[in-house]
Amino acid sequence: MKIVHTIEDVRKSVRQSRIEGKTIGLVPTMGALHAGHASLIEAAVAECDFVVVSIFVNPTQFGPGEDLDKYPCTLDTDAAFCENLGADLIFAPSADEMYPSEPLTWVEVEKLTDGLCGANRPEHFKGVTTVCAKLFNIVGADIAYFGQKDAQQTAIIRRMVCDLNLPLQICVYPIVREPNGLAMSSRNRYLSAEERGRALCLRKALTACREQIAAGQRDRNTLIDTMEAIIAQDQGRIDYVSIVDAETLEPLKTIAGKVLVALAVHIGDTRLIDNILIDLNNPPNIV
Amino acid sequence: MKIVHTIEDVRKSVRQSRIEGKTIGLVPTMGALHAGHASLIEAAVAECDFVVVSIFVNPTQFGPGEDLDKYPCTLDTDAAFCENLGADLIFAPSADEMYPSEPLTWVEVEKLTDGLCGANRPEHFKGVTTVCAKLFNIVGADIAYFGQKDAQQTAIIRRMVCDLNLPLQICVYPIVREPNGLAMSSRNRYLSAEERGRALCLRKALTACREQIAAGQRDRNTLIDTMEAIIAQDQGRIDYVSIVDAETLEPLKTIAGKVLVALAVHIGDTRLIDNILIDLNNPPNIV
Repeated sequence: MKIVHTIEDVRKSVRQSRIEGKTIGLVPTMGALHAGHASLIEAAVAECDFVVVSIFVNPTQFGPGEDLDKYPCTLDTDAAFCENLGADLIFAPSADEMYPSEPLTWVEVEKLTDGLCGANRPEHFKGVTTVCAKLFNIVGADIAYFGQKDAQQTAIIRRMVCDLNLPLQICVYPIVREPNGLAMSSRNRYLSAEERGRALCLRKALTACREQIAAGQRDRNTLIDTMEAIIAQDQGRIDYVSIVDAETLEPLKTIAGKVLVALAVHIGDTRLIDNILIDLNNPPNIV
Repeated sequence: MKIVHTIEDVRKSVRQSRIEGKTIGLVPTMGALHAGHASLIEAAVAECDFVVVSIFVNPTQFGPGEDLDKYPCTLDTDAAFCENLGADLIFAPSADEMYPSEPLTWVEVEKLTDGLCGANRPEHFKGVTTVCAKLFNIVGADIAYFGQKDAQQTAIIRRMVCDLNLPLQICVYPIVREPNGLAMSSRNRYLSAEERGRALCLRKALTACREQIAAGQRDRNTLIDTMEAIIAQDQGRIDYVSIVDAETLEPLKTIAGKVLVALAVHIGDTRLIDNILIDLNNPPNIV
């Protein structure tokens, strides 16, 4: 496995693989890799001939006062992690390599970015879509891999790829959880032992929501009240708890169709997100 | 030469050429082709192995009240024109093919789009950059060809390609003029015989500006006053007359460096644009 830091070097490697007729997979990450990333890298290695893992903590997707400065940076550990999983190339550019001059060009997706995480992180997804477009253009991958944990991000990226006719396929893999149910996240390492316990309220709330829906509950407010009460018990500070259409991300008054139940909760100083997908089409798939 | 109307068909043709090791050129147009387009197609045919001319009157770059509905549509003539010049493929999609659902994703370039044509056509360049990004992604060209007549557009597209790491090269070719000096434009066909005469004021104003600069004039206001007086003599209604840095497009108070003198003028109901580039770096190149 090779580690490269420049756009020129990643393009050179990929060009060679392309000439050899290989399919190219890309797993875009911000590093601090965990079992969630591992599931994406494993899928890429299984499906593609040449797998690039990008590691770039993208400054343009962090708002003022967010955790850009303290975001974990663990390149050596990440490199060993990727090599063990069979990745072929790590692309770890500097901010200057990605933004050599003031970036003036932005890729923005309307509507899908308004709610959920977008409501309190107004510039976040503009940074995400722009850096993903850049990474797709730099690597020239056939398939890019994303995690369902960032449910809104995946809906937005899928829409961007479709609207801009980007010549690649987006694959989304399920949330990977710790044995106790906590969704894997690079930000989990910020949590104290006591906070780790309280952080389980996200999953507990989602599970309760799923059970109520399985039992026939279809009223948004009732379901949200249930989830908010569970989070309050563990002193979680709610950013949002919402039930939306899984594709349009528009809030659902009555629960129907393919449904995304999503929440963002601050546990101490750490903002965590989690979600579940529920398909109420025929036949319903409530898992 | 083939004419295709779907994204799938253009990708199929280009994929085959790519396998054969050919370099791919793209000339994006809105049809109504003239000698200006011919210079781009000829350059593409000379430099590339497989040349795609796209013909698409892109609705998202026209504002309310602009000339979308009356924009000339001459596909048969355009096809013969391209074939004579040696193009390999025409891609002429419908609006539904390019925008199968409400477009939510936009590519926008800041700052460069604020002045000149952007001031009175606020959504125009957002439509241009987005459709160009789409065309680049659909065709997968190595080189795309643009005309210097749309000076602001070329600066914006170059910046977009650079900022988004789009894997293609942008080539810009000089303005082609009628023998009397009128810049070639698909919109010239809107002009009456009398208006054609008056339309020469654009070129006259630019020539006078160049002569004053060659004679040592460096004051913006003096140069602009000269140009505005010439346009007024022919009853041109000025949209803008400006002198800007050729790369940043920022207005220059004192004329220095690589300079773009650009103007937009209504002759009757027809809006015409024209410009000259003047390089005052050492050695100066005032042509």
